[in-house]
Amino acid sequence: MFKSIVLPVVLLGVATTAVADEGQWQPHQLPQLKSELKRIGITMPAEKLADLTRHPMSAMVSLGGCSASFVSPNGLVVTNHHCAYGAIQRNSTPEKNYIINGFLAKTRAEELPGGPNTLVYVTEKLENVTERVLKGLSPSMSGRERHELVESRIKALVAECETDKSVRCSVPAFHRGLEYYRIKQLMIRDVRLVYAPSDRIGNFGGDIDNYEWPRQTGDYSFLRAYVGPDGRPADPSPNNVPYKSKDFLVVSAEGLKNGDPILLAGYPGRTSRYKLPSEIRFARDVDFPAKVDSITADLSVISAATMGNPAWDVRYASVAKSLNNVLKKTQGLLDGFARKDIAAIKDVQDAEFRAWHKQHGANGPKNLLAELDTVIAQDMAQSRQEAAWLEATHSDLLRSARTLYRLALERQKPDAQRETGYQERDLSFIKARLTRLEQSFVPSVDEARYGAALARYARLDAKVRPQGLDALLPAPAALNAMVKSSELGDTAKRLAWIGKDPEAFRKSNDPFIQLAVRLHDTGMVLENRRSEIDGNLERVIPQYMSAVIAWKKSQGKPVYPDANSTLRVTYGTVAPYSPRDGLVKGPFTTVEGIVEKATSKDPFIVPAPLLEAIKQKRYGVFKDAALGTVPVNFLSSADTTGGNSGSAVMNKRGELVGLNFDSTYESITKDWYFDSEITRAIHVDIRYMLWLMKEVDGADNLLKEMTIKYPKK
Amino acid sequence: MFKSIVLPVVLLGVATTAVADEGQWQPHQLPQLKSELKRIGITMPAEKLADLTRHPMSAMVSLGGCSASFVSPNGLVVTNHHCAYGAIQRNSTPEKNYIINGFLAKTRAEELPGGPNTLVYVTEKLENVTERVLKGLSPSMSGRERHELVESRIKALVAECETDKSVRCSVPAFHRGLEYYRIKQLMIRDVRLVYAPSDRIGNFGGDIDNYEWPRQTGDYSFLRAYVGPDGRPADPSPNNVPYKSKDFLVVSAEGLKNGDPILLAGYPGRTSRYKLPSEIRFARDVDFPAKVDSITADLSVISAATMGNPAWDVRYASVAKSLNNVLKKTQGLLDGFARKDIAAIKDVQDAEFRAWHKQHGANGPKNLLAELDTVIAQDMAQSRQEAAWLEATHSDLLRSARTLYRLALERQKPDAQRETGYQERDLSFIKARLTRLEQSFVPSVDEARYGAALARYARLDAKVRPQGLDALLPAPAALNAMVKSSELGDTAKRLAWIGKDPEAFRKSNDPFIQLAVRLHDTGMVLENRRSEIDGNLERVIPQYMSAVIAWKKSQGKPVYPDANSTLRVTYGTVAPYSPRDGLVKGPFTTVEGIVEKATSKDPFIVPAPLLEAIKQKRYGVFKDAALGTVPVNFLSSADTTGGNSGSAVMNKRGELVGLNFDSTYESITKDWYFDSEITRAIHVDIRYMLWLMKEVDGADNLLKEMTIKYPKK
Repeated sequence: MFKSIVLPVVLLGVATTAVADEGQWQPHQLPQLKSELKRIGITMPAEKLADLTRHPMSAMVSLGGCSASFVSPNGLVVTNHHCAYGAIQRNSTPEKNYIINGFLAKTRAEELPGGPNTLVYVTEKLENVTERVLKGLSPSMSGRERHELVESRIKALVAECETDKSVRCSVPAFHRGLEYYRIKQLMIRDVRLVYAPSDRIGNFGGDIDNYEWPRQTGDYSFLRAYVGPDGRPADPSPNNVPYKSKDFLVVSAEGLKNGDPILLAGYPGRTSRYKLPSEIRFARDVDFPAKVDSITADLSVISAATMGNPAWDVRYASVAKSLNNVLKKTQGLLDGFARKDIAAIKDVQDAEFRAWHKQHGANGPKNLLAELDTVIAQDMAQSRQEAAWLEATHSDLLRSARTLYRLALERQKPDAQRETGYQERDLSFIKARLTRLEQSFVPSVDEARYGAALARYARLDAKVRPQGLDALLPAPAALNAMVKSSELGDTAKRLAWIGKDPEAFRKSNDPFIQLAVRLHDTGMVLENRRSEIDGNLERVIPQYMSAVIAWKKSQGKPVYPDANSTLRVTYGTVAPYSPRDGLVKGPFTTVEGIVEKATSKDPFIVPAPLLEAIKQKRYGVFKDAALGTVPVNFLSSADTTGGNSGSAVMNKRGELVGLNFDSTYESITKDWYFDSEITRAIHVDIRYMLWLMKEVDGADNLLKEMTIKYPKK
Repeated sequence: MFKSIVLPVVLLGVATTAVADEGQWQPHQLPQLKSELKRIGITMPAEKLADLTRHPMSAMVSLGGCSASFVSPNGLVVTNHHCAYGAIQRNSTPEKNYIINGFLAKTRAEELPGGPNTLVYVTEKLENVTERVLKGLSPSMSGRERHELVESRIKALVAECETDKSVRCSVPAFHRGLEYYRIKQLMIRDVRLVYAPSDRIGNFGGDIDNYEWPRQTGDYSFLRAYVGPDGRPADPSPNNVPYKSKDFLVVSAEGLKNGDPILLAGYPGRTSRYKLPSEIRFARDVDFPAKVDSITADLSVISAATMGNPAWDVRYASVAKSLNNVLKKTQGLLDGFARKDIAAIKDVQDAEFRAWHKQHGANGPKNLLAELDTVIAQDMAQSRQEAAWLEATHSDLLRSARTLYRLALERQKPDAQRETGYQERDLSFIKARLTRLEQSFVPSVDEARYGAALARYARLDAKVRPQGLDALLPAPAALNAMVKSSELGDTAKRLAWIGKDPEAFRKSNDPFIQLAVRLHDTGMVLENRRSEIDGNLERVIPQYMSAVIAWKKSQGKPVYPDANSTLRVTYGTVAPYSPRDGLVKGPFTTVEGIVEKATSKDPFIVPAPLLEAIKQKRYGVFKDAALGTVPVNFLSSADTTGGNSGSAVMNKRGELVGLNFDSTYESITKDWYFDSEITRAIHVDIRYMLWLMKEVDGADNLLKEMTIKYPKK
């Protein structure tokens, strides 16, 4: 009759808990971490992990914003439910509600088109192009000149690489410009939905459980990459065939236990780990509090403006969801800063570095640290102006008008000279964005949001309002008429502006086109100032990072670059954490926790077949011996961030044992400071996924397709 | 820089967690549990624990409602802060605020009088008097005849024993009348306040943390028992000398760790572990929900009636506190019943028992189970009438009037025949109660509470309202005038009624005296009916328990009686628990948790010297090696209930390592059903107490007086 519980029976002292699993490592850095990997119990050789062309790294793919991995020789990809959500949603109808009912293709013929936004990127090549980006840059250049020259070289490198539309290239900066790598990816554009559980499984707990633990979310889905009969990416077609990936991951149902090592590979988006103490104080005291106030206000405007109209409410649901997500994340950062004085910790590190630099930095540029402080101060001041600009332009109609006018202006230049984001290669994305607006736009709501944003703008300190901007903005009283007479709310009319020349915009009577034209010069002043500052940052920060790397090297410590949406590897152990005195969270949840949370209300409705399988204890081979039941989610100390959604979590042998999908509330601060005591990523235990496939959803065809190692009897 | 955390590193499976530490054992039962005690690691022989005249049991005392123990040869007693609160409060003035500032007598001369309610009871003798209570009771007696005869025999046994006012005797029933023991206690009535920390330590977390974990409360205080120079209890006098107890506990600062065994001895008040499934359903579905509604309503009436008058608010603070405590406890029971279907579990046990009884119960009385069901049904029906009666008489003025009138009536009988509670021996308690009322009474608040209670009464189902009562109750409109013209609100006038004869009451014009006289007969009908039912319960339940004991004996399991405020021993282990999937609470909190909770608002204000000691990490010898800091509270699986407050928590050798003071919210259900998975008692770690005495309060004199085993260096 007794449920087994996780018992903390060993109290570990200070030294032993001081395990820092910090680091989103470039794969080629892993051999430097050999002994660390060995210490936590990873048996796979670091050299193998460093090779993108070999198993397991060759099985890792990007979905553009999410991570995923191949799990069969026939293009089968596993990722998060929330990463495949667009594909599920576009195939759902009130009659065939795949969101609520889930979807399973029992044969390949039943697989559904993922739509134009569902893409699989397979990394084909990675080259260090630092030399070609930075060669011969004169130190006397202005920041803007430097920034624009670097940008144009990057564009040339991309253009040279993108030989056809099967290939997507990028040249991301590492350490903000110390190094540049050109990444060539195969872009597979026929990606189909294979299997998704009900969102009552895949999104169990919904926004309420977002960033929370205990968690019991089955956040997984399956897609399949298709290519033309020639093996190259092709437009969706019935003639296409499954993509034969170089490699795929073996799935292990053998499970992990507390303390076991894990590897995690994926595409983390952005971190800010090398910020100066002054930047942390600016974020903590100025930037983030303002952001929280602004989003909170915007959310209540949306709520009031959609009140009583369920259709409008639905239209703004995803906007509100994403604002709430940013709000929770920003608030989490502020709470983290309040809990631990990270600025003070950084003060100590910064002072140590500066002392070291005084002694050993003689070979580097003079005045580096003074220059750094100056540029950072400019960056912070500029960012306040940019925040003010965002308030002053916070309208979907205006945003569309500005995109369209900018596109018209850029298209007058040769493609290579156009601003990034407005080149020919970007056109389909712009169109998709301008089309998609119709799903989350209501004129009167946009009017209310913009009116409130303008009022917030007006209350800002005069010195953070961009020069001359006040006079160009519409009077609040005029907004209603402007929104009513604008044709940009109509998708067809909005799209019809693509391809028109700038003159047409200047002559237009549409009040939002007029406003976009009127604001253009002020916007460009800000943008050019940003280029100037970025150029300076790109010159100074790499010098600074180079000194930091030398300093760390003197201590025998490798340095990983901030996340930049490129493939990274992190490692850690399955581990609980203590969010506060007397309380331990994790490391596992179980299917019984689903029953504990079950209500008759979204997001805690449990599908009847799942409830039944749990109540009947049909655990089968997926029962964890120690837990006595099927594990659902688990925590690890791996270093992740946004973009790591769907990342493969592997055991010491590189076998798939979980999918990353979130991190705990206390971990939010990690984007700025990795506190190994409390930072935990949340993963789906692959046993839960396999169990659902077998006991609840009957996805035997996929279980058969994958290579699964079952536990020994 | 890394704080050590409690890491759950071992997952224990089903069998090993099935440790039932249930049982509030009579000391003489312990030898039956020898192997259990040995299994968990208790090294002290069970036979020694069974002997009340030997160490350590001879060091255990009752404070009447609380438990305590001697910790020096000179009458020094340690108990909870909340158990000594009355003594602290009565010595506090705005100038010498011992509540907020704490109190420490550096010499015996500085010790303060505890007042008439601060008493220490030392058990001197325990005899089985079952034979004398039950001898020759005829089975043909009515329930009431039986009950009254038993009561009169008990009174005679008490009277025979109470030879002078130094001695207090009682004859509690075990298993509701299967056995009776006469307990003779020395009642020490000169008890002085020696040391109490600030209530910001002793009641840290206050009502908010009541029944909660994580907990960081220093709930301890010291008293000293004084006796006359002849060694016998005496009225408070400067000539008195410290009581030389037979024994005292050695204090161990060596500490415990997770999984360590503990022993706990004290005076648990009341449990209902042997209730039938029907009784659980009645409590869950009828009695407790009604109680919650009634208390919730009463609390809001008090809150509204005292609003805007801080003095009134203060006067009802302790009333509200105690109502809130009952409310939280009742709600906790309901939540527990909702979490686990205890009635269903009991159904299974009950069915097993009935099946066994059918086969093996042939020697016992016929129709036992049918009779049992009938009596229980009568009891439940009667209890609804009694609840209605409580609503109908819910006024402090009326309650005083009824006590006084009843006293007048009872005093017309010879003392031995008077109702329990109205004998000569009870007079001082009645006076104290009638006097104390002035501290928590305001006429207009009493009027509002009674008005609302009468309205609740009027809404009750007609069949639960006692017959004829409706017509006797005052009209709501009359209440205001009644309260205004009653003299019972005046303490002197109230006390003046003691000693008047019934005729004086009948002739009185006081509206509440009149009401008490008017209600008397109806009250007696209820009381006599209760006697009848109790008599039947006392006849049937012992037979039932006797059969249950035989059934359990057939399984090799001893049976402990429900708690009845007599000395019991329970054992268990230091253990965390999982209140829900993915979450583990405890087993320790630390001084750092105090800082985490600190605010500038009551009940989370941390005294500056404490805060400083923590921040400076002046842990000294009290630092736990595993935790790296000073532990504050810990959890154990011991079986406790109200009355166990202040109970000594001992290590395997019988040394004092903690003080029991609360249990977790999920444990509240234990009064009805002991669920070893989630039931945890909360203890003060003695190291926290000793550390505060040394580092914060400078109580070196007491540290010197106690015998303390410090950890080896």
